[in-house]
Amino acid sequence: MNVRAGDVFVMMKPELDRVEDVLVSAATIDYPMINALLRAIVSGGGKRLRPLLLMLAAKAFDQENDRAVHVAAGVELLHTASLVHDDSIDKAALRRGNPTLNTELSTGAVILIGDYLFAQSAILAAKPENPRVMVIFATTLAEICDGQIRETLEAHRIDQSMAEYEARIYGKTAALFAGAAEMGAVLGGGTDDQVANLRQIGSDLGMAFQVIDDVLDLRESSETIGKPAGNDLRQGVVTVPVMRYISGLQADHPHRELIERIVAGEETDQVTIDALIGDIRASDALAQAGEIAQEYVAAARARLTSIPNEDVREGLDQLLDLATIRSV
Amino acid sequence: MNVRAGDVFVMMKPELDRVEDVLVSAATIDYPMINALLRAIVSGGGKRLRPLLLMLAAKAFDQENDRAVHVAAGVELLHTASLVHDDSIDKAALRRGNPTLNTELSTGAVILIGDYLFAQSAILAAKPENPRVMVIFATTLAEICDGQIRETLEAHRIDQSMAEYEARIYGKTAALFAGAAEMGAVLGGGTDDQVANLRQIGSDLGMAFQVIDDVLDLRESSETIGKPAGNDLRQGVVTVPVMRYISGLQADHPHRELIERIVAGEETDQVTIDALIGDIRASDALAQAGEIAQEYVAAARARLTSIPNEDVREGLDQLLDLATIRSV
Repeated sequence: MNVRAGDVFVMMKPELDRVEDVLVSAATIDYPMINALLRAIVSGGGKRLRPLLLMLAAKAFDQENDRAVHVAAGVELLHTASLVHDDSIDKAALRRGNPTLNTELSTGAVILIGDYLFAQSAILAAKPENPRVMVIFATTLAEICDGQIRETLEAHRIDQSMAEYEARIYGKTAALFAGAAEMGAVLGGGTDDQVANLRQIGSDLGMAFQVIDDVLDLRESSETIGKPAGNDLRQGVVTVPVMRYISGLQADHPHRELIERIVAGEETDQVTIDALIGDIRASDALAQAGEIAQEYVAAARARLTSIPNEDVREGLDQLLDLATIRSV
Repeated sequence: MNVRAGDVFVMMKPELDRVEDVLVSAATIDYPMINALLRAIVSGGGKRLRPLLLMLAAKAFDQENDRAVHVAAGVELLHTASLVHDDSIDKAALRRGNPTLNTELSTGAVILIGDYLFAQSAILAAKPENPRVMVIFATTLAEICDGQIRETLEAHRIDQSMAEYEARIYGKTAALFAGAAEMGAVLGGGTDDQVANLRQIGSDLGMAFQVIDDVLDLRESSETIGKPAGNDLRQGVVTVPVMRYISGLQADHPHRELIERIVAGEETDQVTIDALIGDIRASDALAQAGEIAQEYVAAARARLTSIPNEDVREGLDQLLDLATIRSV
């Protein structure tokens, strides 16, 4: 984070501290060995953007948002659970610069810890006993699974459409942002229109966030993002900067075929892949993808005006900046 | 099933057919390849005991139990999801005599399908928008995870206490039986006492069911139970029949050490293990375990008298028989 250094994080510190307390007690288990691992996963980095968004959405309509704290912690645990399973599915060795559980534990134990975190997240989400929140929570979980299934089945094609890419990143990231904002607005007592508005802001924020993540994956060095540069491409996952790069190539350009072979796992020579990533960086594909993110941000920003609470409006505005203007 | 051939299944057929319809539509996904797999998993055997129990519990207080149908299907999907992940954790190759997903799919895909089923089960459980049901559902999910963690960490000790064994099989099996009965009673409109009573009946039924499962694992041939006889022991999982067998051995009996080596994975000779299983069968350990199951059944049966609906009382009575007097 390098822009307007976290005013919204300062403003929301009391709420985020309470979320943190709930997180720590929810990630506690009677087995010392697993306990240490759980603590490490749950407190291992992350900006708590999803709980922050949920608490902001609740605050938009209600200065007292006790009930939202547990659900905010639940949303963060759901995110963590899905990362744990994703890393296992992808067999990723690094996440946020730290070794993932895969390097330390058997697959069975990783599945188990992910499931445990899912269960704890559901318990936290059920805490306010709000039926609407539970429906949103369950639906969001299904959307996240859908995103992961799409990534597994569809991401490895260089001819995918923008709509396919968007459906995929919606499930991967925007669904939980949308759900967090919606649940917060419901718990804060927003009207149906206000809830729908917050949900759409959350969704657009999440979409922008993921597009920029996909740009950073290609743009940044291994040291900065804590995993190998171009990791998506190396895993065979085609993201929008690569799609834009391809569409800028002439029909007979050898890089079309090269990318196809990388995605199919047929080309694994790291020097060749590094050179390709260099060419993608030198093209305007990353800038084009950045513009797509800016469109999402602009759409969300246009919706801010209807939010009654000025602090919340300003806080969301900062999050929208953060989504796009960041190095990590 | 070989006793009182399924009167309760006949009585509850209309309800179970409706549950089946919901199951089929919930286990539908847009991807043909995964769709076929999901269908096969969800319709692949199983007696639908958990939905049956939930529908019976609802019927105890309410002849109209529309809202319970979705939750009943949700409970079955939760069960299926946990089996999918369990098989992956155990690396089991056979379940109900059929190859598990592990033999056909990557671990990543198995995790994904399990997660998808979890998500669908949560959506179904959220359908009646009953906060109490959602709390029970989430708590049950956590208890199931706890059982699996206990099985992974504690089951591989030959000196475990009866309390440890019971805590483990509660999570593995009884928690979902208890939760199903409780959710059904809540949805049917039972009083708090009636709900607590049904929950305890469900729990005792589940405990009896799992103890008998553990007996059958040792007693039956591979052909009958669809997996290798003594599979638990071969996996290093110590169940109550083995615990009883050990406590009947003299202190210096060589089988103590043999079992310890099998559980530790140091003894894998199949002829040696088969011979041990023969000795366990010839002892009274299986009968002793059967008596423990009968105690649970007797406790549950004593609670039946307070159930107002005679058909439901009779149906639960049959399920209690089924739990203990069965070959599979």
